[in-house]
Amino acid sequence: MLSVYQFQTADRIIAGANTLSQLKEHLHAIHPHIQRALIVTQPTVRRRGFSGVIEQQLTEKGIAFDVCTAILPEPTVQNIEETFAAYSGNRYEIIIGLGGGSVLDAAKILSVLMTNEQKIADMLGTNAVAKPGVATVLIPTTSGTGSEVTPNAIVTFPDQELKIGIVSPYLLPKLVILDPVLTLGLPKPITAATGMDAFTHALESFISNKANYFSDMFALESIRLISASIVEAYENGSSIEAREKMLLGSTYGGMALTAAGTAAVHALAYPLGGKYGIPHGVANSMLLPSVMEFNMDHCVDRLNLVAGPMAIETAGLTPEEVAQRVIAKIREWTEKLNIPQDLTAYGVQEENVEALAQSASQVTRLLNNNPKVLSLDDMKMIYRNLIVK
Amino acid sequence: MLSVYQFQTADRIIAGANTLSQLKEHLHAIHPHIQRALIVTQPTVRRRGFSGVIEQQLTEKGIAFDVCTAILPEPTVQNIEETFAAYSGNRYEIIIGLGGGSVLDAAKILSVLMTNEQKIADMLGTNAVAKPGVATVLIPTTSGTGSEVTPNAIVTFPDQELKIGIVSPYLLPKLVILDPVLTLGLPKPITAATGMDAFTHALESFISNKANYFSDMFALESIRLISASIVEAYENGSSIEAREKMLLGSTYGGMALTAAGTAAVHALAYPLGGKYGIPHGVANSMLLPSVMEFNMDHCVDRLNLVAGPMAIETAGLTPEEVAQRVIAKIREWTEKLNIPQDLTAYGVQEENVEALAQSASQVTRLLNNNPKVLSLDDMKMIYRNLIVK
Repeated sequence: MLSVYQFQTADRIIAGANTLSQLKEHLHAIHPHIQRALIVTQPTVRRRGFSGVIEQQLTEKGIAFDVCTAILPEPTVQNIEETFAAYSGNRYEIIIGLGGGSVLDAAKILSVLMTNEQKIADMLGTNAVAKPGVATVLIPTTSGTGSEVTPNAIVTFPDQELKIGIVSPYLLPKLVILDPVLTLGLPKPITAATGMDAFTHALESFISNKANYFSDMFALESIRLISASIVEAYENGSSIEAREKMLLGSTYGGMALTAAGTAAVHALAYPLGGKYGIPHGVANSMLLPSVMEFNMDHCVDRLNLVAGPMAIETAGLTPEEVAQRVIAKIREWTEKLNIPQDLTAYGVQEENVEALAQSASQVTRLLNNNPKVLSLDDMKMIYRNLIVK
Repeated sequence: MLSVYQFQTADRIIAGANTLSQLKEHLHAIHPHIQRALIVTQPTVRRRGFSGVIEQQLTEKGIAFDVCTAILPEPTVQNIEETFAAYSGNRYEIIIGLGGGSVLDAAKILSVLMTNEQKIADMLGTNAVAKPGVATVLIPTTSGTGSEVTPNAIVTFPDQELKIGIVSPYLLPKLVILDPVLTLGLPKPITAATGMDAFTHALESFISNKANYFSDMFALESIRLISASIVEAYENGSSIEAREKMLLGSTYGGMALTAAGTAAVHALAYPLGGKYGIPHGVANSMLLPSVMEFNMDHCVDRLNLVAGPMAIETAGLTPEEVAQRVIAKIREWTEKLNIPQDLTAYGVQEENVEALAQSASQVTRLLNNNPKVLSLDDMKMIYRNLIVK
């Protein structure tokens, strides 16, 4: 456990079914004179009418707006900079991100590009953004990344086959709206991958070498909420109760990872995204059971502490048996949720494992958080486990 | 459970032993050009050298400062307005509150008096403060009120024998420092009363009619931390581990009450403070067991949910028996911590009960949160239970 730790999040979070329609009540507190807003969203979300709910409220308040749907999934540096160029001629007092993690990350980056003379390349790493950005409102439509409450944004650099993070408190939003209605129509594979991604954030934060009182609280509550709802949200996507628990669990996962950092699952996932374009949530979901099996003997005590929140019966079991039950439950979810467990479906072959492991071994910022040290051979073994022959 | 709910807290919280000495690293993020700071503290805290730790860091950074120790316990409107008058001639970029709940509340009020043309009387109630105040840093030296993370500040109006709250998001600080070292030397009676006050915030938020996913998380974690440490912190005041858990439990209690509100314990405590000067923590501690016994049959399910975090054995018990065990544990603490259970020690007599109950019945904002409706006779009965004949 860290002995000095900190917590920082969105200025305000409102939550509950249909809270999207309450956006207008909070605009004045964000900026007293909003003249023009930029809505960053994605075509599927716009077609479902959620952007329209925002547009109508802005119109009621006499606020002009532009709607940008140019951000691609897992956006590249080029995609974000071109989008910035297209909108930088206008002056916005507020940027509203409405979508999955890619859209929210892009909205955060656009907000600081608007106020800084920096290029994205100058912002990479921790605390490299010079000044606060345009005020943001972040409204997730998936229950996964927790991007709405993290100071992080991920950019893909296709030439280097890398995904790199920008970490700055200036990326935190003024307002977050957690409206589970927006997640009711998520397709099953996205519910599965984003939900397991959120669980990964919570569990990796909880076993992180940087775990602390703040991250533990958010991680355990995230684990409790997601464990109680992930299968239900997948099988019965219209359950507002399951969707609400998943959305809160995802946000709490974001708070946990902000306080404690993620670990080896994320380190091994980044090359899969950078080199093979595997979506972040899918890569994390695929890796989670294997990495936890590898970690198990170094975090038996912590895995015992999550058994309760996961509603796992522990009576009469040894600590090792309880830890095994925790991992078995995660493995069971991957089966119930049809999480792919085969990297060859994304073009990864045995001969690519060496380069993947080399690339993952560079992500020392996250590997240092892992409770068990991974050798290059350990990483290769974990990737190989996911190559079905 | 509320279906629409929200969360808002300090911009940043840093925590851990000796974090007070890290204040200087965070000043620039609060304001890029701090020229003069106001330290609001209390004589006992200053004598113990904690204000000196701040003063030294400000000096190192070339920041001028004034130190104000004029705030009295449970400050009156006159005390705060006179203090404001004494310092309003200076221009401060930051106000640092270092002390118990009274000092922190006063620092919050001074910060908005400095930037608004309003009197305190114009700020009472919810959202009546017109503009943001001077940036604040709040550093608690007791584990009780949670004032460092609430948008509330309480003022005593002696003429009306009332304590009234100011509730505004502008009272939230830019930075909170939770350094358990500052609480090591707290006298036993203050450790007891403030600790039980913090527990009251958590438990009342958890059984509140306005309880929600946000408040539940903070309340349960607060209950878990305080239950694990309150007796140890009282009996062995130099245990840094117990003090750290109490301090975090107190902050989480403040977050819980911000999200869900407190209830009948607080409604009945205010007249005891306003009419008889009983410190807030003492009044809450005295009332908690009696009010929970009164409430019990209306919140059996919620009391069962706190049994786990309180480490109460529940095997083989009915839900009613579990709820009784929870109350019995609270009653047991009041005995171990020597919480006074006699209002006559503060001058309250049988003939004052009617007026107390009348006054408490006016605090509808909090009574409406209570899971069980209190009649005037119920309130009289609860006060009478605390009058030892």
